[in-house]
Formats: sequence, structure tokens, C-alpha cells
Amino acid sequence: MDEPRIWTAALLVIGDEILSGRTYDKNVAQIGTWLNLQGIRLREVRMVPDVMEAIGEATNALRSRHDYLFTTGGIGPTHDDITVDAIAAALGREVVVHPRARAILEEFYADRGGLNEPRLRMARVPDGAELIENRFSGAPGIHVENIYILAGVPRIAGMMLDALTGTLEGGCPLLSHTLGGAIQESEVAGLLEATEKAHARCQIGSYPFFREGRPGANFVIRSDDEAALAACTTALRAGLEALGKEVVDGGV
Amino acid sequence: MDEPRIWTAALLVIGDEILSGRTYDKNVAQIGTWLNLQGIRLREVRMVPDVMEAIGEATNALRSRHDYLFTTGGIGPTHDDITVDAIAAALGREVVVHPRARAILEEFYADRGGLNEPRLRMARVPDGAELIENRFSGAPGIHVENIYILAGVPRIAGMMLDALTGTLEGGCPLLSHTLGGAIQESEVAGLLEATEKAHARCQIGSYPFFREGRPGANFVIRSDDEAALAACTTALRAGLEALGKEVVDGGV
Repeated sequence: MDEPRIWTAALLVIGDEILSGRTYDKNVAQIGTWLNLQGIRLREVRMVPDVMEAIGEATNALRSRHDYLFTTGGIGPTHDDITVDAIAAALGREVVVHPRARAILEEFYADRGGLNEPRLRMARVPDGAELIENRFSGAPGIHVENIYILAGVPRIAGMMLDALTGTLEGGCPLLSHTLGGAIQESEVAGLLEATEKAHARCQIGSYPFFREGRPGANFVIRSDDEAALAACTTALRAGLEALGKEVVDGGV
Repeated sequence: MDEPRIWTAALLVIGDEILSGRTYDKNVAQIGTWLNLQGIRLREVRMVPDVMEAIGEATNALRSRHDYLFTTGGIGPTHDDITVDAIAAALGREVVVHPRARAILEEFYADRGGLNEPRLRMARVPDGAELIENRFSGAPGIHVENIYILAGVPRIAGMMLDALTGTLEGGCPLLSHTLGGAIQESEVAGLLEATEKAHARCQIGSYPFFREGRPGANFVIRSDDEAALAACTTALRAGLEALGKEVVDGGV
């Protein structure tokens, strides 16, 4: 059987506040989960500060290596919001005011004090770009070439993802099934490796945890093939039980 | 006045579970905050899957560009824990069993079922490496060249950071002061930019939020100079109040 084509994406998280530790990023998990539902694998993330050269270099490295590049952060109205300028420069495109974005912002701010100059900054896009709808706060996301430029605020980024759902070409979602319990991974490491090797197109990840002072682990079986996933899960469960372990089925 | 030398670090987060969205990363914020207290700036983060080539390529790119490289994840006892092998290969070093790590694990597992082969994997290090103490679960972190290899579990990574506190050469911590309130950033964007320009060695970041359906923002003033930070904070506060805004002092 031919291996299906795998579609990949990268994510570039832009913002001093992430690197300083002030703000916890939530977009990696949100976008990784959403991409998988579109049949696209998030393969690489980079986080850079609000610096033109750093954004541009990462943009060019990532857009050429993956089918899609998503970015979050730096598209607001203030002087530290330089994502559009940095990406336009990286693509060799001019920055222009998008007429539809301007109209959206004029309407959004009509009863909120009007469209002043900082707000108009949020209508600026790399020349030739399309808009991504933002039902929450007006200012749209931006799609140019294979790049999707989203807001940094997770709730707004999530609404932009909603607007993109079903519009990107992808392949098979990666399916997963979790087995776990109060099991030390070092007691079952051989079983995990042997079970993975015996099941083509399956990977098994082992993720230890501590609860109430006791070690445990979750074993996540992943495959893009439903039957292979089920067979591997059944085999791993049987193997763990044969070693006398009590298995908790964490489901798909 | 001469600009002080700025020490920089990168962080490489290793693990399929981060990219799939299954696990929220907490190490970026933890390590970014800790590094700043050591006088070191976290300048770049990359997240890659459990793949030898991806880990090796990121390791070599990041270790040469920064004073320090930290990694998290992939140093446990199972087959998907390949961080040590990938970094050793990237450095052109052999993987060896560290005698002191072996002794630590023998003692730790003495009354926990003994040191089996998977557990012994956690004593493997790139040749010439030193250990980073792990008071929580035995298996140590690893220091080789300018690379610090930490566990992925945030609580264990945090204990390894404790063990490293005060041992890395750094410069001035970046100080910060936060002013905020129910202020739309697009109404004060010009003030933010002008205030930043008028205060050398200060940056102002603007971070919008929504609370109880109302827009607001935090303005974070950052500087490595205490007097400059205080002057810039005072000026921004006065400027906001002159625009009729009620300012909440978020403190340092």
C-alpha cells in the first residue's frame, strides 16, 4: 500500500512577552490540534521576539520547508506590531492598505470612536493578500502565499481558525488512542518498542507523570490508519496486562 | 555610557506530544523567567518532534547563535527518548554511560525494582558531559559544551533549573514595570511609541485583553537600567492620565 502524502505546517509565534515568560503561549496546542483535524501535521514551531530580521528569517526558513506556515502575534495597532511589515519584506512585497479590511474596520469602529491612524494600521497587508475573518474584534487575519497570519490573543486566533476550517487542503488526520495507568515506563520500555516495531504506520509515545506521589505514564498510540491503530492498541493492552499491569483506557 | 554585553539563550523543546497539541508546554515560560533572573535573555525557541535529524539540525543552529542552549524532553527510558543520541551526533561525540549517573540511578532504583536496561539508558550522555542534579526522580540532566539538557516534565525541569541557579555567567536582568487598565491600545498607540522613543534603553510592549466584554491592555515597560525604567514608567503614566485614562499600576 502506498503511503499517503503527508501535509505539514510550521507555526511562528511572535512576541517578546512569550520569550520573557510573562505570557503563557496557548496557540501551539490550539493550532496543533486544529491542524490535525484538517489532516495537516504541525512539524515545527519557532518563537521569536518583535524584531524585523528575526521574523523575516524564520518566515523564509519555514514557508519553504512546509506546505503551510501559520503565525501568531504582532498584528495589532501599536508600534511593536511589526509582523505585517516583516513578512512583507521577507516576501519582497509592498505593504498596502486592503480596501475590504479598511471597510471592515470603519464599520467596527463606527460607534467605538472612529477609525484613527493606529486602527488603520490593522488594515495593512502584504500586497496581494486575502483576509481571514475575525468575528470577535474586527481586525482580520491575513492569508498570503502559503502563510496564514493570525492574532496572538488565543481567543481571536481561535475564531480565525474557525473561519479557515475546511478551506485548507490536507491528508489523513493522525488518529490516536491512549492507554495509561500507575505504570513506570521503565518497566515496560521493551514492550513499547517491540509493539511499535510490530505495527507498521504506528508510533507509540510514552509520557510519564506523577500523581499523589506515585509514578505513572500515558502511552499514546498514533497512526493515520484506523485498523492499524486498533490492532496496535489491542496488542499493547494485552502486553501490559501480561506483565501484570492494570491498564486505564484513555480513549481516542 | 557603553551598552552592557547581552547574554542570550535559545530553548529547544523536543516532543511529538507538544506539536500534536496533546500537551501544553510550560517550559518556555518557566525557563524564560528563570533565564532572565540569571541575566540571560531567551531570544529564540524551537519545538521539534522526536526525530533525530530535526533535533540535530536545531541543536547546531541554536548552539552556535547563542551563549547558551537549553533543551527539554526526550531523556527518559523509552525508545522515543532520543535527545541524548541526537545531540551527541550533532556534536560529533560518542554516547557513553556516565559512571556517576549510573551510581545515582543504582541508588535511586535500589528499593524500586533495581537498575534495569531501560533505566540505565538514563545514564547515557554525550562523551565529556557533566551532570545536572535531579533531586526529584534520580535521572540527572546533562551539561555538554554550552548545552543544558533538561527533562520535559516541568516539575523536574524546574528542579534542574534550581540546581543550575547562579552557575551561569550572565549580565543585567531585564527589569519591567506594567501599567494597564480598561484602555484601548489603539487610542494610545501614538503615546506609547513617542514615550519609547524618548527613553533610551527602554522598550514598551502593548498586550490587549478582554475582560467582562470590555477591551483593555497592559503596557509593559522593559529596561536593563533601573533609573531609565522608572523615568519611562513615570512618563507613560503621566501621558496616559493626560489623555484622561485611569491607570492601574501592575507593579514590577
